[in-house]
Amino acid sequence: MAERTLGVVLFPGFELLDVFGPLEAFGGLPGLFRVVLVAEQSGPVASAQRVRAVADHGLADCPRLDLLLVPGGIGTREEVENRTLLDWLARRAAEAEIVTSVCTGAALLARAGVLDGRRATTNKAFFQWVADHGPHVAWIKAARWVDDGKFVTSSGVSAGIDMALHVIARTCGREVSENVARAMEYEWHTDSDWDPFAKVWGLV
Amino acid sequence: MAERTLGVVLFPGFELLDVFGPLEAFGGLPGLFRVVLVAEQSGPVASAQRVRAVADHGLADCPRLDLLLVPGGIGTREEVENRTLLDWLARRAAEAEIVTSVCTGAALLARAGVLDGRRATTNKAFFQWVADHGPHVAWIKAARWVDDGKFVTSSGVSAGIDMALHVIARTCGREVSENVARAMEYEWHTDSDWDPFAKVWGLV
Repeated sequence: MAERTLGVVLFPGFELLDVFGPLEAFGGLPGLFRVVLVAEQSGPVASAQRVRAVADHGLADCPRLDLLLVPGGIGTREEVENRTLLDWLARRAAEAEIVTSVCTGAALLARAGVLDGRRATTNKAFFQWVADHGPHVAWIKAARWVDDGKFVTSSGVSAGIDMALHVIARTCGREVSENVARAMEYEWHTDSDWDPFAKVWGLV
Repeated sequence: MAERTLGVVLFPGFELLDVFGPLEAFGGLPGLFRVVLVAEQSGPVASAQRVRAVADHGLADCPRLDLLLVPGGIGTREEVENRTLLDWLARRAAEAEIVTSVCTGAALLARAGVLDGRRATTNKAFFQWVADHGPHVAWIKAARWVDDGKFVTSSGVSAGIDMALHVIARTCGREVSENVARAMEYEWHTDSDWDPFAKVWGLV
């Protein structure tokens, strides 16, 4: 099986666990996945929680990506108006095998236009804000994640871990995912319909 | 309530989720917790998953810490011999209110000598390796986390999130923790005795 390159997009105010939950899973499988962090410019990027990660690449020098992951976080409030980033997302999504989002990262994919006509989900506390950015998207209120083929979107923050394990299972087999979850001592929610938070946040 | 400063120790080969799972929780509470990343030198530090985070401080210029968090990861194999780091950990642990570890980070606390006579737990897949570094520690095989007063140690990787929520509940009240877990859409394991992975890894 050829190694896939996963690019994770960083922007000021990205949500820490949206990025590093999935990366714990993908990053534990060298040979299957190579992970790169990409931002408008390479170098340090401050998270919503203020601590900083380092973008390996800028948008202009980012290698070809097989998989793309777009996190959420308070920074999405500005990035939904960032035409440079949205255009880059649309171009990279077109050539990727699988495009994923965690939390309010779905708002960026929606504004990039790539979710139109697709089923998708997002953070439950900020559901309506995200949905308003994608009037032609079939938003699913209760779902841990939604797999619509090329696009796999997940609910808020920690849901990204379950979604990542699903994408690993889909691309590399269920046993690989189960081994990763076990090594993380993580109780994987394998049912994409499991979503108590849709009720907690009053969506259903 | 005065803001507490939480210092998280980085070293080459730290485990991503050991750091950023707890930081997602603590980092969402500005005014209650200020989070700083600290390493031998300030600047970028590569994780076990290769992507990099930025240490805000070196050991020498790190501010006073109320809380200390020591992650695990493959890098602990070298750091258990790093006298500079271990001596720093012993000094900072002495003046801290609460000292925590995730995963094999407990091996560093054990080698720093601060867990002697204490109850503690660690990663289940590498349990014996860690235990060998602390012959005078009362190692608990089955526990999501162990709260022994000043020292709160957790099991592998994702267990750090549950432990962090426990420490937030202990210092700021249960309601604060529950709000954080809800915002993370995270199903908090509130029972420190919940540990299916002790059996999975053949410890019980």
